[in-house]
Amino acid sequence: MAKNDKKMVNAITSMEEDFAQWYTDIVKKAELIAYTSVKGCMVIRPYGYAIWENIQRILDGMFKATGHENVNMPMFIPESLLQKEKDHVEGFAPEVAWVTMGGNNKLEERLCVRPTSETLFCDHYKDIVHSYRDLPKLYNQWVSVVRWEKTTRPFLRSREFLWQEGHTIHATAQEAIEETERMLNVYAKFCEDALALPVVRGQKTESDKFAGAEATYAIEALMHDGKALQAGTSHYFGDGFARAFDIQYADKDNTLKYPHQTSWGVTTRLIGAIIMTHGDNNGLVLPPAVAPIQVVIVPAAMHKEGVLEKATALYEQLKAAGIRVKLDDSDNSPGWKFAEYEMKGVPVRVEIGPRDIAANQCVIATRHDGEKENVSLDSFVESVQQKLQAVHDGLFQAALENRERRTYQCTTIDEIRQTLAEKGDGFIEAMWCGEEACEDEVKAQTGVGSRCIPFAQKTLSDKCVCCGKPAKHMVLWGNAY
Amino acid sequence: MAKNDKKMVNAITSMEEDFAQWYTDIVKKAELIAYTSVKGCMVIRPYGYAIWENIQRILDGMFKATGHENVNMPMFIPESLLQKEKDHVEGFAPEVAWVTMGGNNKLEERLCVRPTSETLFCDHYKDIVHSYRDLPKLYNQWVSVVRWEKTTRPFLRSREFLWQEGHTIHATAQEAIEETERMLNVYAKFCEDALALPVVRGQKTESDKFAGAEATYAIEALMHDGKALQAGTSHYFGDGFARAFDIQYADKDNTLKYPHQTSWGVTTRLIGAIIMTHGDNNGLVLPPAVAPIQVVIVPAAMHKEGVLEKATALYEQLKAAGIRVKLDDSDNSPGWKFAEYEMKGVPVRVEIGPRDIAANQCVIATRHDGEKENVSLDSFVESVQQKLQAVHDGLFQAALENRERRTYQCTTIDEIRQTLAEKGDGFIEAMWCGEEACEDEVKAQTGVGSRCIPFAQKTLSDKCVCCGKPAKHMVLWGNAY
Repeated sequence: MAKNDKKMVNAITSMEEDFAQWYTDIVKKAELIAYTSVKGCMVIRPYGYAIWENIQRILDGMFKATGHENVNMPMFIPESLLQKEKDHVEGFAPEVAWVTMGGNNKLEERLCVRPTSETLFCDHYKDIVHSYRDLPKLYNQWVSVVRWEKTTRPFLRSREFLWQEGHTIHATAQEAIEETERMLNVYAKFCEDALALPVVRGQKTESDKFAGAEATYAIEALMHDGKALQAGTSHYFGDGFARAFDIQYADKDNTLKYPHQTSWGVTTRLIGAIIMTHGDNNGLVLPPAVAPIQVVIVPAAMHKEGVLEKATALYEQLKAAGIRVKLDDSDNSPGWKFAEYEMKGVPVRVEIGPRDIAANQCVIATRHDGEKENVSLDSFVESVQQKLQAVHDGLFQAALENRERRTYQCTTIDEIRQTLAEKGDGFIEAMWCGEEACEDEVKAQTGVGSRCIPFAQKTLSDKCVCCGKPAKHMVLWGNAY
Repeated sequence: MAKNDKKMVNAITSMEEDFAQWYTDIVKKAELIAYTSVKGCMVIRPYGYAIWENIQRILDGMFKATGHENVNMPMFIPESLLQKEKDHVEGFAPEVAWVTMGGNNKLEERLCVRPTSETLFCDHYKDIVHSYRDLPKLYNQWVSVVRWEKTTRPFLRSREFLWQEGHTIHATAQEAIEETERMLNVYAKFCEDALALPVVRGQKTESDKFAGAEATYAIEALMHDGKALQAGTSHYFGDGFARAFDIQYADKDNTLKYPHQTSWGVTTRLIGAIIMTHGDNNGLVLPPAVAPIQVVIVPAAMHKEGVLEKATALYEQLKAAGIRVKLDDSDNSPGWKFAEYEMKGVPVRVEIGPRDIAANQCVIATRHDGEKENVSLDSFVESVQQKLQAVHDGLFQAALENRERRTYQCTTIDEIRQTLAEKGDGFIEAMWCGEEACEDEVKAQTGVGSRCIPFAQKTLSDKCVCCGKPAKHMVLWGNAY
């Protein structure tokens, strides 16, 4: 790190002053992204990409453990292929990028850059699925996709973004529904265990489901500012795509049947969720499981005899224990280093100087709460491991408390309006009759939209918050990213 | 695997009969790829993609061990950005795909889908490189790129292909040249140690270098049919891109200087090289380091008491040793399984039946030479490990011998013509004066082009093979994929 970057470390807007600017400051100052000449697209810089690599590694392991295989589909979809499923093309055509020229020649048929790949997978299934013996196929791919957004923000909404898209095809509806639920649960578990991100699992309303899906499940998280963020989705397609693409298989009883499909995805938006759930006014705070650097060792009085040797020995101990550790033996001052690694959200900092060495101890500081503790070097690795666990637990607990504190039950539209006016953004729990008109009316009158119908239902009243007719579901409402 | 696929296993054209068809049969029958509705693009199926994942994992480790960091750039390049370096745009513009519409709107400036990303990296460097302290930057990305090829073949030439592109920027020319050489050596080591693929390291002639480069280095391999395949390239750019993009840094002496750049890449074409170097008339033969399944265990008389238990125990032993192993306990016959895993190129097959168990032994068969050996179960894991090493060594040795047998020294154009007519394709070593006219003339008269100027030079004569004037280099010539 260059010395002339020193000033930059402190130049961050406080989140209370301007949450959007605070977010932008972090993504830039923590060197997660850089803007580009390509409108709506970003460079993911090494520190940001390393977070994504950790997300990929853990999720990919979970996908493989549940029987999925990785494949790679073309990035282009011929227009005729995109058009085969009616709802799907209506949902996506307005926001795709079109390739119309190859070299100097106009293409006979224009190609869209994939906004999602259901149509490509269907085209492939038709080729390889003929018998019940060919089912299920449990596929995933790690790629980028393009959606021609008008307003963009790093990680949250960009014209190109990185994601994984799972695509599976099954003999029966039941198997496909189970898969849809299984993968939503994989996402929820990943968010909670790896990202320290508590999520609400639920189903999207009809108006909010994926173009072409019979049902869309989602996990929803609540950010520091009380806005909701959809962290992952899992879709059940029934046999709609199979019918549109004429995919049939011969079942054991020798009759031809339509198979049932799913798809599910999470994106680099998860990095945005990490920032807005755990970050603070000193910068990023990273959950240990995905932090590129889990522990930074900062030696004090570095040139004093024995200090660098001891710091290096501690570094080697942590490395041998499989911990991602960095020893910063640069010429920058300890104070500068503290601020720098706080900005970068490194979960645990180890300080070691001559007096610590004399006392056979070191200082361990935890990023999320700023606490410092002297620990004996005899149990150094165990202490660091405990602290990493403590950071994870502390982050999860704080995020959960923030969500609970900001979740409000309302039984009338007035109450929703009043709650939002008094308390600011948050999750509103309110009953709903199931009619789209009421969903629209709540949005029109209060500004908040339905986030999902939580699987964990409560009965707050027996009447719809809008029309007063019998309620079918409790819906979670909120402003969303 | 479904029983009705049984017939397919044997339906493969022999390479002597029709090499191109043999290749196509393998990529399809070993389930590496599938064709798509998208002209010139393919689906990489799970078995093919798993090979690529192994290639990625090993190479990525080598990149990180040499100090490189992964990043992610946008997939689009605005036309004005592509045009900044004159040679570069001339080389690539004729073969790029152009995005001209976003949703329903015509774009103000058309965007090409990246054919390579030098211009995007330069745009980013300009943003982040200001001082000598900011150098070097050692970046890499794993993405796909698009080049609008007219004739395509799976893995070898397709409109979209997967690759990695390394991009680095250095204070001095010397550092950049060292990096260019370092990465070519990393590629050569990877090809030899992981893919059992002997390669010739050399420099491309002026006419054959990368658009915008001062020098292009390449590794060249020889396929079964005597044709050459460029397996990887590493480019030295000097400060040409820095000047075109106005990237300057303040050096220690406080003067502004232009930095020096490199880029280097390998692609999914390596999978094509594996097929055409190691494959045979029974199908694919995979080098153990990248084989998705390194060992398959095929039990004989599977329902006899104790057989499946023993096979499972052997499976667990290999798995614990970190070997990628599959136990095929399906109902298919052992004969069918043998043919299937031969087609898929699994390096080692373990056969275990009641008589083997009684004798405390098993049979280990090696894919590359068809040899079988009885080995004691007391040293089972060690025996399997030795066999995997033997497959790697055997593949490398056979490939090296093929290349040496098919490398010919010629001192006249007539001799080149005659050699090709008598022996068929291969590497021709011949002296060259350095003039492009002579390079063109050799190509026109014999059909073979220059592959590279090998680093390991020999002096076959002091005269150019074409004009007879003093020779500057020994060039390797050949027909290429």
